[in-house]
Amino acid sequence: MSRYWSRIVHELTPYVPGEQPKIDGLIKLNTNECPYAPSDRVLQAIAAQTSADLRLYPDPQASSLRAAIARFHGLRPEQVFVGNGSDEVLAHAFMALLRHDAPLLHPDISYSFYPVYARLYGIATRDIPLRADFSIAVDDYLQAGGNGGIIFPNPNAPTGMALPLAEVERLLAGNPDSVVVVDEAYVDFGAQTAASLIDQYPQLLVIRTLSKAWALAGLRVGYALGHPDLIEALARVKDSFNSYPLDRLALAGAEAALGDTVWLQQTRERITRSRTQLTAGLQARGFEVLPSQANFVFARHPAHSGAQLAAQLRERRILVRQFARPQRIADFLRITIGTPAQCDALLAALDTLIAAQPPAAR
Amino acid sequence: MSRYWSRIVHELTPYVPGEQPKIDGLIKLNTNECPYAPSDRVLQAIAAQTSADLRLYPDPQASSLRAAIARFHGLRPEQVFVGNGSDEVLAHAFMALLRHDAPLLHPDISYSFYPVYARLYGIATRDIPLRADFSIAVDDYLQAGGNGGIIFPNPNAPTGMALPLAEVERLLAGNPDSVVVVDEAYVDFGAQTAASLIDQYPQLLVIRTLSKAWALAGLRVGYALGHPDLIEALARVKDSFNSYPLDRLALAGAEAALGDTVWLQQTRERITRSRTQLTAGLQARGFEVLPSQANFVFARHPAHSGAQLAAQLRERRILVRQFARPQRIADFLRITIGTPAQCDALLAALDTLIAAQPPAAR
Repeated sequence: MSRYWSRIVHELTPYVPGEQPKIDGLIKLNTNECPYAPSDRVLQAIAAQTSADLRLYPDPQASSLRAAIARFHGLRPEQVFVGNGSDEVLAHAFMALLRHDAPLLHPDISYSFYPVYARLYGIATRDIPLRADFSIAVDDYLQAGGNGGIIFPNPNAPTGMALPLAEVERLLAGNPDSVVVVDEAYVDFGAQTAASLIDQYPQLLVIRTLSKAWALAGLRVGYALGHPDLIEALARVKDSFNSYPLDRLALAGAEAALGDTVWLQQTRERITRSRTQLTAGLQARGFEVLPSQANFVFARHPAHSGAQLAAQLRERRILVRQFARPQRIADFLRITIGTPAQCDALLAALDTLIAAQPPAAR
Repeated sequence: MSRYWSRIVHELTPYVPGEQPKIDGLIKLNTNECPYAPSDRVLQAIAAQTSADLRLYPDPQASSLRAAIARFHGLRPEQVFVGNGSDEVLAHAFMALLRHDAPLLHPDISYSFYPVYARLYGIATRDIPLRADFSIAVDDYLQAGGNGGIIFPNPNAPTGMALPLAEVERLLAGNPDSVVVVDEAYVDFGAQTAASLIDQYPQLLVIRTLSKAWALAGLRVGYALGHPDLIEALARVKDSFNSYPLDRLALAGAEAALGDTVWLQQTRERITRSRTQLTAGLQARGFEVLPSQANFVFARHPAHSGAQLAAQLRERRILVRQFARPQRIADFLRITIGTPAQCDALLAALDTLIAAQPPAAR
């Protein structure tokens, strides 16, 4: 607290990312990182750029990377915006496209960074409750009255549940007057992308990251796809904020990643296979597991407190994520899909915990 | 222009960085990059991080890099904030510390990104004219009435002229109630840093970059030094915007750079030596050259239009920067100090241009 602070700073409650502790031998299933190394092509491309040229600024337009992303999605470069992770892309989207008089709608259980961005930029929001089964009820976004925009992750976080493309389209068709942001951080693990709808719906912005399916959380690259008018708004805000958010190494590494679709396909298959096995293992131990299309599962045990289980797993050097709020999800654990060995270690630890602790301890 | 844009987007006039053309054989003296390769230690540190660990998020607090910066300056880590280039650090400073009811003061001839940030965040500003000799008149910042903050580069850009430390301190002593940001992007080439005043003046924020003296424009690392209260405000805004603005490679490279002070000292000496020679060469050709403490000079010829000279140099594959506005500096060229060979090539090109063109052509 300081008299030197801008007024808004006093009101901020920053987003708290999953912890990144430096503890050896940790099984880290708390921040939805990929358990496998990125493509060798990425490492080679970065090595090739680790040179005297680092003295030079990167391309402020990121033209080559944007062209590669456009090719990957069958779009044009002017339909692509890139940023320092999808979190930065989201921040610019809030400022550039979601700041209107009517409130922004988002699911009540969703990415907890959304209300943080909204507070930073003075945007009114309205939570729309998920259904009892934790699915997004599209009808609620059609009957909500005027809105200044809609944002939701697909698959949703932290539930992992996907909205079918037809439902996304129904939401778009019913909201022609406001921007609809579909945050597809986790789309590569089985959900349907809305990128195919971009030419039809000029109010659609799809946001992606290379942090999850591409195993590049450490490189900080995200992007948005949409009508060139939406992309221009993002570019105006970005160029009023920081001309060069992606360094030369990130630009090169990201472009190389997109060129290795074989790696992507193999990694996705490994993770979805492990997801099936982990889900079955959790269910066999009495957990309710929401149907996940992401690289994590969201699960609760009817007889065990989520906070307590998370703490007990931590004592055994296994990190998972648990959200104290809203109350409705407090007993869930969000568990990243690790390697088969990591998933087995988690299940073995749970066996000890669940056997050791009578239901009454809840 | 689009009905989907937030209102502010219509009013933005983004900053335009110096161009980064992909033309072979270009002599690039337009964006104040270092003409020499960064320290080998930087490249080695980046190579060591180019590994499977890129799948993991970076440290969101950048603890190790902040500790290294603190050691370098004899400060504590809680007096250090890091960001994606000093441009991002500046953006967060505008939002976190310079957004008040009274107008922000800055020199009328200064870093042209300042008014862009101000417009993005709805901050009123007041230009304070430089003196006739292009120096900053500290008295004007003492008698300006209430202000919501003060920001200026030291050395100033694009003039290259430095304000002595005693004058910076006089400005601080006379403005105890508002944040004073000293943007020291170019301080390593002969000016005096205000970092030594941080323990005395809780309203002082010093901003630095690794893009210039450290030859790492391509890596995007900047930082701020100040009282922990000011740093906390920056952290709150940053953590409401993007948890991880520095990727794993940038964190490692920046930390290694700060460890090689021998490299820094040698590079600074090479550049200041070339600056002396280039200044003499320009003066011998009739240019007025402002006294520079930066890695560039700001110079005009009494008989030649700045815009025309810049265009003619460009035809000869030599890029320099020229600012059309304000009118008072339109005939100046901002010339980055290159290698001795690049400086010689510039002078040789100017010989042709100045001889070929009679004064009347202006």
